[in-house]
Amino acid sequence: MKYTFASDNCAGVDERIMKALERANKDFVLSYGDDKYTEDAILAFKREFGQDIKVYFVYNGTGANTIALGSILKPYQAVITPAFSHISVDETGAPEKYTGCKLIACPTENGKLTVEDIKPHLEVIGTVHHSQPKVVSITNSTEEGTLYTTDEIKEICDFAHENGLYVHMDGARIGNAAVALNKSLKEITKDCGVDVLSFGATKGGMMFGEAVVFFNTDLGEDFAYYRKNGTQLHSKMRFISAQFKAYLDDKIYLDNAKHANDMCQYFYSKLKEVDGIEFIYEPEVNGMFLKMPKELSDKVLTKYFFYDMDTKAGKVLRLMCSFATQKEDIDDFMKLLTT
Amino acid sequence: MKYTFASDNCAGVDERIMKALERANKDFVLSYGDDKYTEDAILAFKREFGQDIKVYFVYNGTGANTIALGSILKPYQAVITPAFSHISVDETGAPEKYTGCKLIACPTENGKLTVEDIKPHLEVIGTVHHSQPKVVSITNSTEEGTLYTTDEIKEICDFAHENGLYVHMDGARIGNAAVALNKSLKEITKDCGVDVLSFGATKGGMMFGEAVVFFNTDLGEDFAYYRKNGTQLHSKMRFISAQFKAYLDDKIYLDNAKHANDMCQYFYSKLKEVDGIEFIYEPEVNGMFLKMPKELSDKVLTKYFFYDMDTKAGKVLRLMCSFATQKEDIDDFMKLLTT
Amino acid sequence: MKYTFASDNCAGVDERIMKALERANKDFVLSYGDDKYTEDAILAFKREFGQDIKVYFVYNGTGANTIALGSILKPYQAVITPAFSHISVDETGAPEKYTGCKLIACPTENGKLTVEDIKPHLEVIGTVHHSQPKVVSITNSTEEGTLYTTDEIKEICDFAHENGLYVHMDGARIGNAAVALNKSLKEITKDCGVDVLSFGATKGGMMFGEAVVFFNTDLGEDFAYYRKNGTQLHSKMRFISAQFKAYLDDKIYLDNAKHANDMCQYFYSKLKEVDGIEFIYEPEVNGMFLKMPKELSDKVLTKYFFYDMDTKAGKVLRLMCSFATQKEDIDDFMKLLTT
Amino acid sequence: MKYTFASDNCAGVDERIMKALERANKDFVLSYGDDKYTEDAILAFKREFGQDIKVYFVYNGTGANTIALGSILKPYQAVITPAFSHISVDETGAPEKYTGCKLIACPTENGKLTVEDIKPHLEVIGTVHHSQPKVVSITNSTEEGTLYTTDEIKEICDFAHENGLYVHMDGARIGNAAVALNKSLKEITKDCGVDVLSFGATKGGMMFGEAVVFFNTDLGEDFAYYRKNGTQLHSKMRFISAQFKAYLDDKIYLDNAKHANDMCQYFYSKLKEVDGIEFIYEPEVNGMFLKMPKELSDKVLTKYFFYDMDTKAGKVLRLMCSFATQKEDIDDFMKLLTT
Repeated sequence: MKYTFASDNCAGVDERIMKALERANKDFVLSYGDDKYTEDAILAFKREFGQDIKVYFVYNGTGANTIALGSILKPYQAVITPAFSHISVDETGAPEKYTGCKLIACPTENGKLTVEDIKPHLEVIGTVHHSQPKVVSITNSTEEGTLYTTDEIKEICDFAHENGLYVHMDGARIGNAAVALNKSLKEITKDCGVDVLSFGATKGGMMFGEAVVFFNTDLGEDFAYYRKNGTQLHSKMRFISAQFKAYLDDKIYLDNAKHANDMCQYFYSKLKEVDGIEFIYEPEVNGMFLKMPKELSDKVLTKYFFYDMDTKAGKVLRLMCSFATQKEDIDDFMKLLTT
Repeated sequence: MKYTFASDNCAGVDERIMKALERANKDFVLSYGDDKYTEDAILAFKREFGQDIKVYFVYNGTGANTIALGSILKPYQAVITPAFSHISVDETGAPEKYTGCKLIACPTENGKLTVEDIKPHLEVIGTVHHSQPKVVSITNSTEEGTLYTTDEIKEICDFAHENGLYVHMDGARIGNAAVALNKSLKEITKDCGVDVLSFGATKGGMMFGEAVVFFNTDLGEDFAYYRKNGTQLHSKMRFISAQFKAYLDDKIYLDNAKHANDMCQYFYSKLKEVDGIEFIYEPEVNGMFLKMPKELSDKVLTKYFFYDMDTKAGKVLRLMCSFATQKEDIDDFMKLLTT
Repeated sequence: MKYTFASDNCAGVDERIMKALERANKDFVLSYGDDKYTEDAILAFKREFGQDIKVYFVYNGTGANTIALGSILKPYQAVITPAFSHISVDETGAPEKYTGCKLIACPTENGKLTVEDIKPHLEVIGTVHHSQPKVVSITNSTEEGTLYTTDEIKEICDFAHENGLYVHMDGARIGNAAVALNKSLKEITKDCGVDVLSFGATKGGMMFGEAVVFFNTDLGEDFAYYRKNGTQLHSKMRFISAQFKAYLDDKIYLDNAKHANDMCQYFYSKLKEVDGIEFIYEPEVNGMFLKMPKELSDKVLTKYFFYDMDTKAGKVLRLMCSFATQKEDIDDFMKLLTT
Repeated sequence: MKYTFASDNCAGVDERIMKALERANKDFVLSYGDDKYTEDAILAFKREFGQDIKVYFVYNGTGANTIALGSILKPYQAVITPAFSHISVDETGAPEKYTGCKLIACPTENGKLTVEDIKPHLEVIGTVHHSQPKVVSITNSTEEGTLYTTDEIKEICDFAHENGLYVHMDGARIGNAAVALNKSLKEITKDCGVDVLSFGATKGGMMFGEAVVFFNTDLGEDFAYYRKNGTQLHSKMRFISAQFKAYLDDKIYLDNAKHANDMCQYFYSKLKEVDGIEFIYEPEVNGMFLKMPKELSDKVLTKYFFYDMDTKAGKVLRLMCSFATQKEDIDDFMKLLTT
């Protein structure tokens, strides 16, 4: 069984990241982030996003999302989020458990929330009998492989802020989004008004570690306490930090996202030649969601493993490309499919 | 400022572990632990502890302790633990937050809980107005550098079990304890009746990752769900697993614990020659807790950083040795102290 | 402003209940439920539902629902419930906060869940990335004024049990349901396979107090601890118990539910004569959900207060009858409306 | 078995309260506190404590304490409280469960916390590894029957505020304290600097209902949401409010506290004549904590029930007087004891 296209986290670690880990492995440094590597990594984030941010490193995306939300929310509040967002359906209730809050799952056309989706849920504001919406959480690129434009993000942020809500962005594939939008990370997050970002890096080639980046300077002051309270503080922090420094400074995130997106387009160009394959969405980043005739899917499922994915079109096949995907991998797949 | 003796997690990563990480970095494997590396690591644990265990990998010690307890406890129950245990004073309330339970912090003579300490807290069992003790949590070696013998652990386990309680062991330094007791890991845990172990490995030379090991087969069945719900599931799991396999199979834990303990004894042999230094406890594993005259401490604090540590004797200086401590490090320290 | 039809909890307390409270107010009895009144009230429940139940008194419906669910669920599990159920939208996140669980809110045609609604949510069972459905929670009569038949309840219970789920029933208006179905309380709950019932009584004429009744004898053993942990244990318990004894033994619940349902039918017979009023559902119990032309609603809203209610038809006007509603109240309302 | 002296909540309801309940039982009013009775009760609180307060009614003392703390605290924070305080040992972990916070239980001489007890726990402030003390919670009169003077309360409040902490007072027997100190309720709470009070009334003669009173106007703004989220919002609120209005306006709390305290002094005057009875503390309010020779206690335990109480002197006998205690009750007890 091959896991080549099952998920972008089936890939290993970028070689440049491995080297950064080795370079960080010398001498004694203070644990828990009071070290030079962490200082440097934070500076790298400030170069990317500006000086007026707060950044904290955590272990993983579920941790980043959950504790970021927990640091903002009171238990009587609620998060408005697309029905198939990661926090809504792929985190086994971690956000509910840690925040104590309700997640309001909104059906969407394509994984993307709109102001119209949010609006009806704000009617309860001010009524004590209902969880009070306080955060809108969106993912870019989305769990369904689609992409918010900066205008769309701005519209959501503006509307949220006008109504006293914050915007959280799950950036598990934020690099892929930036590449696809041909914008900088800052332009598609902070500049649009996003308040806090879960900055994903594992799918982009890191071994472990994600970052919570607060752009809204009213938030995040005490996140370090929440991080420890939420079990997400690493002792040998330098090994997350050193990865992040390389990831940003050496533009690994950019290279790798570009490669993954390109491979996906290459793959798409091949697949759309095949009769009977129905694409749920045009691929914009590094994943394709599609249906294929049973005789085709039976063939590929003999050799390849995939997760079932929920979309408006029901359960579909998801094919993900990553920084590690090679043209040969795609060609092999196509060969199996078409012969 | 030097961090040489501040904590055993100020050291980096064992070179053999680095190599294991590199070896694991090839090809695509399924994420979240459905991979060959994880399978192998679990087998390594079973060779060490026997077939009838359940083992799960998590990110860190606070996560291991917190989610292990959470998977056992209902919110009206309580944990009996020494007053200065890590779960009690060094996890920023993570156990209370996740489990919802009360931690009953018992003052101890030397960081070690006794049956006599536990007994009075069991009087409330059966009365609905009081949190119901359900777990005894002890750490070996303790946060104060002391050591439970196997007889002492057995006595606690027997008493706990007779009274319907489970025993959780925080094994952040379980290797150091095994070496000091000259026993196998199994002999000082499972064979004594411990129900669940937080198996620490970061302080022993790993980069990240700890294990939760259930010896009581009634427990842990659904821990995989708790792990995700508690934000402690790693996507690229192979990189925790590969470390663990090497850590156990190559006896890295043993080498490194022995080295750390030996360095501590060497250090102790030097320090006890110095006038005015008062040892709170005889060092048994890899740390010393001591008071020194102000003129001495002033000298070392100019070059070395230490955490203040709570003990029955109040705040004291803690000096920790690790797998990375060299005799030269100790000699340098002694030179500063004595000249 | 009149609150006559705003909600059935705008009424006061049944006179027979007031007398029961007075009768209970003598001498000293043990607090927290170890008293004769509580013993008697429990016997009254056993006469109603059979000997093999566990019953606990709490303060209110949100408490009953929340702690009942909390006593059954682990935080990685989930509750499947209609989108507009009370636990889903009217408890300000109390269930999420206490249980830590996800609530899966299913859109329904008429406030009533079906097996077809439940089915797709069970596909995730066994996959660690998703909250695991463990309870189906339905309300009878529903928050939208509709009614499950016993066949419908049985079908849900059978399906839930076949799939390893429990069924919780929110019985805030269980008396109204029993009357409308012309069945006993037992026939519409326990006999259908319901595992645990939140037995509402405040809307039926009590001053305060609801009951959690476990029909599934595997559950509820330690509910007394959950009740205290969830802040729902009353010290002067006799004053809840004495109400319940009268409520059941004197069939107050039956009288009052019948009266409320009858008043609703009377009201309906008048309203359906009025041009332009659109009933969302045919009234089956004690409430009507309707839309009326603006010139009509403007008239009644000058004198009467109503809550906006969510239904499949959007926000509608809800008119509730209670044990205290008099024909004159309805006639007054009709006069205002039609002149 | 008689429950006369077991607890002050073994008494029933003051007759004047019963009448107030009856008076409130007419017509329809809005539920959840938007009613005239609640408005009036709030005004009564403002007459007692001044205009600049926020007051919310809840069901019980555990609810008042738990949700009041929950509305102030973040989960990484901690509460400093005496070891035998109600929140620490008599609420089955409700505060930990709802707040997620650690309770730091301080041993005391006599149930009363001092600045010296608090001080050492503040050393961790600013260190992310430790729960951050944010609230000091004291009870007046204490669970051990002792009494803080206003100077003592002021000293604690001043010290807490200087260090950025709030002071919560559990006032389960606040009336008894006021009477014993010969001060107004305001003088012993708000005027001393208390930030938030759990105002107990059940022990003073109410049927159910307690109040959370915020004196610190920075706090409590969103308590109404916390109250619902914490399952403590009563639907037929008028029946709590009407009790409270009578309780304050008719000075029931004062009469009843004075009576209870006087009965206790009368009882004490009799008991101290008996050879061999050792009083742990001089009774200052309405309870006595004592040891008596086994032959004496054996006699009274045949007819009277008591809870075992924890004090610095170990388990002792507690005798409580209440508003309902009559001299004859005491004389009967003395007769049994002395013949």
